[in-house]
Amino acid sequence: MLLALSSAFAFPSKKQYKPCKHLVLYFHDIIYNGKNAGNATSAIVAAPDGANLTILAGQFHFGNIAVFDDPITLDNNLHSKPVGRAQGLYIYDTKNTFTSWLGFTFVLNSTDHQGTINFSGADPIMVKSRDISIVGGTGDFFMHRGIATIMTDAFEGEVYFRLRVDIKFYECW
Amino acid sequence: MLLALSSAFAFPSKKQYKPCKHLVLYFHDIIYNGKNAGNATSAIVAAPDGANLTILAGQFHFGNIAVFDDPITLDNNLHSKPVGRAQGLYIYDTKNTFTSWLGFTFVLNSTDHQGTINFSGADPIMVKSRDISIVGGTGDFFMHRGIATIMTDAFEGEVYFRLRVDIKFYECW
Amino acid sequence: MLLALSSAFAFPSKKQYKPCKHLVLYFHDIIYNGKNAGNATSAIVAAPDGANLTILAGQFHFGNIAVFDDPITLDNNLHSKPVGRAQGLYIYDTKNTFTSWLGFTFVLNSTDHQGTINFSGADPIMVKSRDISIVGGTGDFFMHRGIATIMTDAFEGEVYFRLRVDIKFYECW
Repeated sequence: MLLALSSAFAFPSKKQYKPCKHLVLYFHDIIYNGKNAGNATSAIVAAPDGANLTILAGQFHFGNIAVFDDPITLDNNLHSKPVGRAQGLYIYDTKNTFTSWLGFTFVLNSTDHQGTINFSGADPIMVKSRDISIVGGTGDFFMHRGIATIMTDAFEGEVYFRLRVDIKFYECW
Repeated sequence: MLLALSSAFAFPSKKQYKPCKHLVLYFHDIIYNGKNAGNATSAIVAAPDGANLTILAGQFHFGNIAVFDDPITLDNNLHSKPVGRAQGLYIYDTKNTFTSWLGFTFVLNSTDHQGTINFSGADPIMVKSRDISIVGGTGDFFMHRGIATIMTDAFEGEVYFRLRVDIKFYECW
Repeated sequence: MLLALSSAFAFPSKKQYKPCKHLVLYFHDIIYNGKNAGNATSAIVAAPDGANLTILAGQFHFGNIAVFDDPITLDNNLHSKPVGRAQGLYIYDTKNTFTSWLGFTFVLNSTDHQGTINFSGADPIMVKSRDISIVGGTGDFFMHRGIATIMTDAFEGEVYFRLRVDIKFYECW
């Protein structure tokens, strides 16, 4: 199933281009479920008719919108010191599989990177590796554009997920 | 009325530029109204105070957010074989006319096209022809940018609409 | 506090680049609070569990989504003749400070400017000056890209705010 989806939806970037800048980062999302207010980094704020805001909706979560402020780390450890925050929204937008649409920003503030990176795109969650657009940046990433390759690095129940984001800039300034 | 709006809001693209790639596609939106769960491809998930999620809000739908996963076809026939899905959200954002704001992705998966195209922009629905930005792409559309000219090709009650999307890329890679 | 945040989150644009086009505009947001239907230009349409749609949510408004259609003016006077409309959405996305995520469009229609400008980015509201991306444009701003520097020019209670938007295009066509 995953394989079929992979071959169907993983559109490889053209290999002849080499990124002018390259970063790999992780971000961690803990969704509010009515009981984890202290730890939650995201919350369901919209749901389809009949659903509520503490349980992801039944039909592949179709119609849920979540708002998030997730820690970004250099490795896959939730407890590593964050280098920034991933902020924005994701939307579950399909009724017959898990697919989301993403609009968000990486706000990076570490000794290595100071600036923001803006992302937009469709995220076919069940596909191993999927590409979204980097539509702009500020600070160290002033006017940059590129492609981010997303992989689900962990998924625990319906509360926690961790994404690995392979950021490849093809336009640097 | 339409004419007045057209002259007011149709900002023609500069004619001296020729697209490096050109595509015309249609997508079809059937909004959930409480009775069409089987056919619906979109759903109202947010509404202003006092409105519900099965009827578009009263004042030009101001404040409604819809999430969609709409079939894309090569012609204007809803029943043609889809070449991909349009996924994302639209927002009705004006109180005194029909205007929406769009953030969505075309996920194309046919023998002709494999990749995604990311769109963002204001859509003054009552204007015959309106332009939004293509802010990025992946796969066959790796790093592309351009302009999409949208026309409402059909509008049936408050349940179905079909948009013709004239995709003109001015940056190809 | 503001100073600390400024030094932490104001990522200056690289100084060596000069904009190819430059505009300063203001927009004015009056949020619906249940009593100002006549004047309001925006409305809360999504809220976290337990909150309502006429009062911004308690925890730094975390989880609120507002849809807006705000007048744009050349100066800081709400009653100046508008030169266009700012349309889209903002999202309060942090639990421990005021931060929003913006997706919106300037639809300009004056003797000076005819066209649209599309914006996307994180807005750390408490920082004096913050940068977001201009991801595309149409009409006079055909295919433009750039950076917008946002400053909160006024903030009155939880009903009115005015943003000064310093639009710097670095890619003009």
